[in-house]
Amino acid sequence: MSRKTGKQTIVFKNRPKILAGYTVVGPKEGEGHFSDKYDYIMKDDLFGEKSYEKAERKMIQEAITGAMMKAKIEPRQLELLISGDLMNQIISSTFAARHFNVPYIGIYGACSAMAEALLLGAQFVNGGSMDIVACATASHFSTAEKQFRFPLEQGNQRPPTAQWTVTGAGTTILSKNVEGEHKYIHSATIGVVEDYGINDLANMGAAMAPAARSTIIAHLEALNAKVEDYDLILTGDLGRLGADIFIELMKESGYNMIKNYGDCGRMIYKKEQNTLQGGSGCGCSASVLNSYIYSMMDEKKYNRVLFVATGALMSTLSTQQGDTIPCIAHAVEIRNNDY
Amino acid sequence: MSRKTGKQTIVFKNRPKILAGYTVVGPKEGEGHFSDKYDYIMKDDLFGEKSYEKAERKMIQEAITGAMMKAKIEPRQLELLISGDLMNQIISSTFAARHFNVPYIGIYGACSAMAEALLLGAQFVNGGSMDIVACATASHFSTAEKQFRFPLEQGNQRPPTAQWTVTGAGTTILSKNVEGEHKYIHSATIGVVEDYGINDLANMGAAMAPAARSTIIAHLEALNAKVEDYDLILTGDLGRLGADIFIELMKESGYNMIKNYGDCGRMIYKKEQNTLQGGSGCGCSASVLNSYIYSMMDEKKYNRVLFVATGALMSTLSTQQGDTIPCIAHAVEIRNNDY
Repeated sequence: MSRKTGKQTIVFKNRPKILAGYTVVGPKEGEGHFSDKYDYIMKDDLFGEKSYEKAERKMIQEAITGAMMKAKIEPRQLELLISGDLMNQIISSTFAARHFNVPYIGIYGACSAMAEALLLGAQFVNGGSMDIVACATASHFSTAEKQFRFPLEQGNQRPPTAQWTVTGAGTTILSKNVEGEHKYIHSATIGVVEDYGINDLANMGAAMAPAARSTIIAHLEALNAKVEDYDLILTGDLGRLGADIFIELMKESGYNMIKNYGDCGRMIYKKEQNTLQGGSGCGCSASVLNSYIYSMMDEKKYNRVLFVATGALMSTLSTQQGDTIPCIAHAVEIRNNDY
Repeated sequence: MSRKTGKQTIVFKNRPKILAGYTVVGPKEGEGHFSDKYDYIMKDDLFGEKSYEKAERKMIQEAITGAMMKAKIEPRQLELLISGDLMNQIISSTFAARHFNVPYIGIYGACSAMAEALLLGAQFVNGGSMDIVACATASHFSTAEKQFRFPLEQGNQRPPTAQWTVTGAGTTILSKNVEGEHKYIHSATIGVVEDYGINDLANMGAAMAPAARSTIIAHLEALNAKVEDYDLILTGDLGRLGADIFIELMKESGYNMIKNYGDCGRMIYKKEQNTLQGGSGCGCSASVLNSYIYSMMDEKKYNRVLFVATGALMSTLSTQQGDTIPCIAHAVEIRNNDY
């Protein structure tokens, strides 16, 4: 059902349809650039729960429920849930999954989770195994910072290369192709793990930039496409510094990323929000994709988008044991079907 | 390419072929029941590395390399690696993946990882997207115990319901169907998250038994099959107590699991090895499947096996915050093609 165009790239011939995207974000994100695009803005980071971890799982749960409602599907119509997050043992995804009586595939790709979920979901829908699939992820500033870096109460000073973990959840509902105007998953490129020797947990953009480059080039080559063929090439959360490094790396490889390039981490917050290099966390690209990007596609302002979520695949323990940060980027090409 | 027979079950019409399985196990496992079936038995738990975590990733790496050699494929022929493990942020899988220049999908399903990887791999091969896929996982007693329970140096007394995390890695190489005698992935049932309110980290078998029941019944119903149609129905690592509970639960549901039922956790160690309820960890089912089970199938002693790996999806933090243990079981049906 899918054609292999290269070692890494899959073209989904049956055009898995994007039925709906839904986002739940924190108050800080609600004051950012896409405040009018999010579906739900939380009044506070605890979301009525007793811990930030419980808030994060509730965010995923609400994003899945919201996406199903937006897609006008009943819970019993959902055939598969694919979800991952940053928490140890992806508890946010699993505990959210507990509330839906649905087959569940747990994934881990750090901040590449949204793209990983989408490409797996497209694979299931394209092959005809599942008709309706929910692809979900979330991150939460307060759960991620305390797990990966320092206790929040410590009030650590943030180094200038740091990014701000986005409090946000996003869900996309995919379905088999049906008649009518819609956007769909055209193809995907599965990333290869890249490690350029960065070991600074406060400089993830620099670590992830080479992975973004290799996946994007693989995707373009497989489809015999040019950068200018896209309305937007969007990396997940390289942040300002990481995006600059990425642009430089692409230039070295002969690609000009000036005109139609964006990075969710760089775009999500306003400059005065003082997030240093911008947003990060798997909720970052999930929130931007499922709100702003999908709405731009619905308005036909974008018709062909390459969404490339990047992930830094270390743990605190691997870093403590002196390891560098292996990174990955998965690319998902989204098109309007009348384009 | 695949036919949906029920809400959870996929039949892989193109019969993804099992090219080879390879196992790397620790010295304790090497003294267990399947000592003559494992491909490689480590002399010590550190495997020449400086930490148990580095040993675990090396085990996965060696299991992938070994499986490729056994399958007589070159590294460049491998088109996809799917792997997951128990470590926070699945570092064992990711750091192993760093050594293979291959598209990588990271998964988390706790001890259900081997079945999750196999069903995803079968999905990619069945749909024609990828011709050769490696499905891998591992666990290590010393990394898991310290991460999930107590520091090893503390020498905590183990409660009678405890299981012993298996030090073992297993890899299966799947390929597109080719002529000739071989075993293949016939079908798979994706599990639903079940939570029966168990919150004891030292009684995982009891927590996982209901998930095994629901997935197996879903699989049998989808295929219109009976328990006695199988040469073996094999749960992952319920252990002795968990297997007893599972048999009881199945009896309640009208299924007799006396004759052709096995549990990897119950089977892997000898009784005198003092592991209380038996083995656990994703390396448990991976080690048994990729050694003993595949060899029994090659010898035609088994022709139809239902492999059901179960996973307990908590984290230490979710347990500390008072949560119960959500569990999942994924089923993969393996058949000889001349059967």
